[in-house]
Amino acid sequence: MKNGSGLHCDWIAVDWGTSHCRAWAMASDGRCLSEASNAYGMSRLAPEEFQSALLGLIEGWLGGDGTLVLACGMVGAQTGWVDAGYRGVPCAPRGDQPLKISGTDRRIDVRVLPGLRQDDPANVMRGEETQIAGFLSRTPDFDGVICLPGTHTKWAQISAGEVVSFQTAMTGELFSALTGATILRQTIPDDGWDEDAFSEAVSDAMSRPQALALRLFSLRAEALLKGLDGAAARARLSGLLIGIELAATRPYWLGQDVALIGAPALSAAYAEALGAQGLAPQAADATEMTLAGLTAARNGLKEVS
Amino acid sequence: MKNGSGLHCDWIAVDWGTSHCRAWAMASDGRCLSEASNAYGMSRLAPEEFQSALLGLIEGWLGGDGTLVLACGMVGAQTGWVDAGYRGVPCAPRGDQPLKISGTDRRIDVRVLPGLRQDDPANVMRGEETQIAGFLSRTPDFDGVICLPGTHTKWAQISAGEVVSFQTAMTGELFSALTGATILRQTIPDDGWDEDAFSEAVSDAMSRPQALALRLFSLRAEALLKGLDGAAARARLSGLLIGIELAATRPYWLGQDVALIGAPALSAAYAEALGAQGLAPQAADATEMTLAGLTAARNGLKEVS
Repeated sequence: MKNGSGLHCDWIAVDWGTSHCRAWAMASDGRCLSEASNAYGMSRLAPEEFQSALLGLIEGWLGGDGTLVLACGMVGAQTGWVDAGYRGVPCAPRGDQPLKISGTDRRIDVRVLPGLRQDDPANVMRGEETQIAGFLSRTPDFDGVICLPGTHTKWAQISAGEVVSFQTAMTGELFSALTGATILRQTIPDDGWDEDAFSEAVSDAMSRPQALALRLFSLRAEALLKGLDGAAARARLSGLLIGIELAATRPYWLGQDVALIGAPALSAAYAEALGAQGLAPQAADATEMTLAGLTAARNGLKEVS
Repeated sequence: MKNGSGLHCDWIAVDWGTSHCRAWAMASDGRCLSEASNAYGMSRLAPEEFQSALLGLIEGWLGGDGTLVLACGMVGAQTGWVDAGYRGVPCAPRGDQPLKISGTDRRIDVRVLPGLRQDDPANVMRGEETQIAGFLSRTPDFDGVICLPGTHTKWAQISAGEVVSFQTAMTGELFSALTGATILRQTIPDDGWDEDAFSEAVSDAMSRPQALALRLFSLRAEALLKGLDGAAARARLSGLLIGIELAATRPYWLGQDVALIGAPALSAAYAEALGAQGLAPQAADATEMTLAGLTAARNGLKEVS
């Protein structure tokens, strides 16, 4: 279809999380024609604002009736626009039956992909399954473990194209809460990094994970008594949290092929920590994998329709 | 001295922390004549407001010139009213040479007790040393470990009336940050308790401390998928954090006499967790020990003057 601005848009891909909404105008041949994003994540919107927030982002791409908008992420949570539910693992990460939202503006046909659930131990993901599907659409023979570092870092065991099981570590959110809502905000600056401090902290936390709460206060005490450098403190905090996570997830990654899907700087930190354990993880960009996953889901819709 | 309201006040004891200020009007025979407190902790005051915040609390107790006001806590920090410094361990917890604040209102003579410092590993305490001094003033032969649960839980090795070494776990502040500034605020209510959930979590965290970041997200996932009860979730979070702390501090408390100085409910949780390890800690109230410690310091001043 063609709109006033001359943009030919076959469908629209949307990644709508807690803090951001990102959309891509897609051509029928799979090319991305345009992209847009804003900070209207689910956590900032009341239910009656969901549609207008979306239209504000994509309205310029719309032409005739019923352009397909295929969305993943927290938009499909209980507290999102529609509860798109979960599919139980083991299963392929690509959802083929997104939930259609009824009663929308006639120019759009919004469908939301479900998340994944694991019953025992209880766990959920929403959004990461689409990144995993994107990765597997490009690397279909991958067998191993995919780590998706972030606010809630996911670790997924992949075999024969399926997510067999997964775990979640609250590492990113712990880092944010500690640097934003504790006495460490006086010690940890917003940026800065120290490679050696990071590596030492990873190693320390892997061998003595129980010391975490003591190590946290040490950052403060060393800043007070020994002038601990802010960049070193920040890298050490990150290393402590990633180290304790690697100690916990060792049964997942030990001896496995590992792929990292995340923001480049964070993935690089995980790659270094895993590298010290003798692994050589491959890395893929989170945003690229999201778009690849939404595209794979779009192609899946064509197959079933 | 005697003021207009007829109160005979020999000196005033003050515990001035980050979040609260508490004062006691003391008679020369050691009795407490009156007490008062407000929420003007150090974190809420600008330097020019310190004196008026104090006077607002104690003005009714003042008579003639130079009533002694003996204070402990964050009032003596770098960011407090005056930097009262630290004394290095090993040393007796009772500070005999509080720092006098110059230029105050003529009705008061404010003196601030120093904290304790440990150089290797770096650690500091400010306020807890006075509680320990209060405890030792009543139990002078105590030999063992004193645990002071709170925002920053302190563990102090006591021998021959001295603090030999100490550690700090950020357990209370971790609990607050997790329940206030992460996704767990949707899962953990402000109150509620489940004895079994607490005990199981302590045991779990002591045997698998590295799993902390995974266990944290499990609280959220079990609430979503299995309707985990809020009281159980709250007790389990507390148990996980206290459990990992006990795993870290085991070399301190194993085979030792342990005393707990803290708020009653929190001390009871620590007592139960330590009880499961075969210990029978004695408990003392934090506020009482603070006043006892300030009184001991007051008596120390008389000795040296």
